[in-house]
Amino acid sequence: MRILITGVAGFLGSHLADHLLADGHAIIGMDNFVTGSPDNIAHLAGNEKFSFYRRDVSNYIFVPDKVDAILHFASPASPNPQSKSGYFNLPIQTMKAGALGTHNCLGIARVQGSRFLLASTSEIYGDPDVHPQPESYAGNVDPVGPRAVYDEAKRFAESLTMAYHRFHNVDTRIVRIFNTYGPRMDMEDGRALPNLLKQALLGQPLTVYGDGSQTRSFCYVDDLVDGIIKLLYSEEHLPVNIGNPVEMSILQFAEAINRVTGNQAGITYMDARSARDPQRRRPDITRAHEILKWEPKVDLEEGIRRTIPFFKQKLGLA
Amino acid sequence: MRILITGVAGFLGSHLADHLLADGHAIIGMDNFVTGSPDNIAHLAGNEKFSFYRRDVSNYIFVPDKVDAILHFASPASPNPQSKSGYFNLPIQTMKAGALGTHNCLGIARVQGSRFLLASTSEIYGDPDVHPQPESYAGNVDPVGPRAVYDEAKRFAESLTMAYHRFHNVDTRIVRIFNTYGPRMDMEDGRALPNLLKQALLGQPLTVYGDGSQTRSFCYVDDLVDGIIKLLYSEEHLPVNIGNPVEMSILQFAEAINRVTGNQAGITYMDARSARDPQRRRPDITRAHEILKWEPKVDLEEGIRRTIPFFKQKLGLA
Repeated sequence: MRILITGVAGFLGSHLADHLLADGHAIIGMDNFVTGSPDNIAHLAGNEKFSFYRRDVSNYIFVPDKVDAILHFASPASPNPQSKSGYFNLPIQTMKAGALGTHNCLGIARVQGSRFLLASTSEIYGDPDVHPQPESYAGNVDPVGPRAVYDEAKRFAESLTMAYHRFHNVDTRIVRIFNTYGPRMDMEDGRALPNLLKQALLGQPLTVYGDGSQTRSFCYVDDLVDGIIKLLYSEEHLPVNIGNPVEMSILQFAEAINRVTGNQAGITYMDARSARDPQRRRPDITRAHEILKWEPKVDLEEGIRRTIPFFKQKLGLA
Repeated sequence: MRILITGVAGFLGSHLADHLLADGHAIIGMDNFVTGSPDNIAHLAGNEKFSFYRRDVSNYIFVPDKVDAILHFASPASPNPQSKSGYFNLPIQTMKAGALGTHNCLGIARVQGSRFLLASTSEIYGDPDVHPQPESYAGNVDPVGPRAVYDEAKRFAESLTMAYHRFHNVDTRIVRIFNTYGPRMDMEDGRALPNLLKQALLGQPLTVYGDGSQTRSFCYVDDLVDGIIKLLYSEEHLPVNIGNPVEMSILQFAEAINRVTGNQAGITYMDARSARDPQRRRPDITRAHEILKWEPKVDLEEGIRRTIPFFKQKLGLA
């Protein structure tokens, strides 16, 4: 297949490109480098099955050839208020990537008869009052809350995708992506895992906020990409959660990271931050298991081991 | 003020134009007549303070003069699957009016320094599990459900409006409009009140589905418009519910309609339809009362009396 990936220079987009190229597909990659980085696709420069166009998917998409599939992964995604490329600092661009970007992609998919896969997110569940979250859960998102620029953009993108499927018969897929980690992740995205891993590699005590009992589920990127590609090849049009359902407390994460990295500096506890982050989020992956025969295979310690070289390189420790 | 109203040929847009013209403002009206009707603004043709441009707000807005305020009311809004102008049959246009239309309006408001008022809806609460619904309720909307094309478009529009307010300092208002009735309403919009009133005026028995215990709250259009204009003149940026909190069973509605119209044909009961409609929805208008000193004044029987002439004319009974 010839596959267009928007946001190809992002964390997930670049891994998707690698895996799909390895499967023998040709990739047309697009990115405007607002949140993605040329570093993430530099290794593909010599690959004749990979071409790259610097474009903003919200404005215009140039497609030089007929594409068999479109994977729409372009969007700011970091919830870190301090990150310049996080959605708090790019609210309008984030909403445009979800609405106009998805609309542009669906327009091409309709005209060209391409399959379309939307990168949606566990954020559409907001601060959930149901655990774990099945795809049928409607979520708890305040449309005028500060995180809504991302959450509602993705909810809108899902609705628009289903509208094109139902009304224009476009062959669509929707993946709801839960927390993911691995090489090429944004080390400044403000999430617990990169913060802790950085501290551990620098030999610092790991900062745990509150008592560390708040939980997270993290999926290693290879598992996630495997699930997304299985969904792409499937016939399923309704949303499918892809994520790791193993829920751990932040304290357990911190201990695992110190164990794997051999960090002796221990843990320091700090006052809980203003609770902008959901206290818990965990995927119900029953549908992924039934429909795609998919489940994650890489456990946390193995995933951390595979992620360390990237972090060391970025930190100048390699 | 010079005020731009999108969807001016719709039920609410045309009443807003009437009230704002009566207040001394100049109105620039836009509509593409996909759901609005030229009949609704025909009486304004000779008014030199009213100008009209046939435009699709999702594509492009032409603004001939500086506008002091923009009221974005353009959208399909009927939930009737049989209605050609309902959102089930115009899913993409509905999503575009919410996303691209709102984006176009906010762009003008930002450049011109205009106030912007978004017509949002009680539909953003979905099928609520909290009664009555305060503005803080996050709602229960399935982003891939069939009604999502309308619900998510309006949720997105709210988020985008707040993003322009917070990030670009645009002077915004958001009104969440609950069920409204009155002259110029869409008689085919599939809601209970127009269906029952039509039957009563034709001397037919009123059809009540199920046991008639499902409830509704209906606001007379003059009350609603009064609330919206008070919000426009206020300084409130967060969403405000405007609607009538008097909740009645469908059976009570039917009995009131038979009473006011003098219809002797009684009521017939039919099997409950497939329950696509929410069973209950009722506004909590505490904020409207506190912030705007607003509450509805027209009771149901008076509202029905004021609506009858329009229905008689449309039915050829006048």
